Amino acid sequence: MVEHYDLTILTDDDYDVKYIGEQVKEIIKKSKISDGIISVITSHTSTGILVTEPLECIVSDLEVLLRRLVKDDEEYAHAHFLPTYGRTSANAPGHLRSILTGNSCMFPLRKGKMQMGAAQDILLMEFDGPQERMVFVEIIGE
Amino acid sequence: MVEHYDLTILTDDDYDVKYIGEQVKEIIKKSKISDGIISVITSHTSTGILVTEPLECIVSDLEVLLRRLVKDDEEYAHAHFLPTYGRTSANAPGHLRSILTGNSCMFPLRKGKMQMGAAQDILLMEFDGPQERMVFVEIIGE
Amino acid sequence: MVEHYDLTILTDDDYDVKYIGEQVKEIIKKSKISDGIISVITSHTSTGILVTEPLECIVSDLEVLLRRLVKDDEEYAHAHFLPTYGRTSANAPGHLRSILTGNSCMFPLRKGKMQMGAAQDILLMEFDGPQERMVFVEIIGE
Repeated sequence: MVEHYDLTILTDDDYDVKYIGEQVKEIIKKSKISDGIISVITSHTSTGILVTEPLECIVSDLEVLLRRLVKDDEEYAHAHFLPTYGRTSANAPGHLRSILTGNSCMFPLRKGKMQMGAAQDILLMEFDGPQERMVFVEIIGE
Repeated sequence: MVEHYDLTILTDDDYDVKYIGEQVKEIIKKSKISDGIISVITSHTSTGILVTEPLECIVSDLEVLLRRLVKDDEEYAHAHFLPTYGRTSANAPGHLRSILTGNSCMFPLRKGKMQMGAAQDILLMEFDGPQERMVFVEIIGE
Repeated sequence: MVEHYDLTILTDDDYDVKYIGEQVKEIIKKSKISDGIISVITSHTSTGILVTEPLECIVSDLEVLLRRLVKDDEEYAHAHFLPTYGRTSANAPGHLRSILTGNSCMFPLRKGKMQMGAAQDILLMEFDGPQERMVFVEIIGE
């Protein structure tokens, strides 16, 4: 069996972090599939999906790291007027941070529950907000 | 149902980028599965698979970033004569860049179509070309 | 069909690398599924799962890179007393390295065999050991 869901998340800032593990668990409660795999995939190219411990201090260390590895104020080729955007693009660092963090995660679905380690949560990383973001949640199994 | 495909891609340079989303969509047109998950996985350790917007400027910003994070001319332990290669290995930075970009991606398959965000494409990153590269495309669903 | 397995791995050092491709192949030998997808997912937030060539020199270049990108001795927000840990946290770099390397991988299962490139192995990266670690191995297919 296959079930498709869309998760809509409003982000609040240019750089933002949303814990979405609970929302994925709410989706699973509605599912008819009890055993399989859950895939969580962002539909954007300036957001990331990653798994870590949902602590403010870790998230803040991650922000320092991502701003150090991918500078806000570098000279980016992408920082020019883009007709398709209708404006000068300012999200070059967002695209690059998105590539470093990755854009999806998976977890086992076992006996109706998403199997995660005790410290794990799923994070939607916003690198070009605030925006309404859409995340695919795919459940496949039996 | 499960379907396996192999995608062969010729890369043109030591460092190269190939947009392969269209080729994956061509595969899906042949598939008997209409709903499920598509997984795209490289079979190599000096290539990457990632998802981003297929713009020259973004790809060029990414190359600057990857060459800054993983230098071409560092002293690498891997840069020695390897009997299995029959030559001195020159692809240490390629292996490391491959680890940073990741080696796979997934997308939903919904009603016969690969569900992607408007800006998303799949990129095969070549870090040790030119070579003939092989990418696994796996479709699972119903 | 869906099959769930847990792989228990003892790591030997604060920073450690374990090649686990063989153990995953042992699991597949027991499986009743011959065609599908194998997902390997860590249950921890200070370990990584990645795919590369299992050579000492590559693994050592990777360690140099990860210690350069994410310093051992930075001032981390996470480096404070955590009541839930019962001690001052020392694994901030481990969480960050885990995010950079990723926490899962997938491979095709074709005719009872895990389909991998000739140079590929699966690595469990330990960033906060030594510990007993648990990795989910999920097989889905037919």
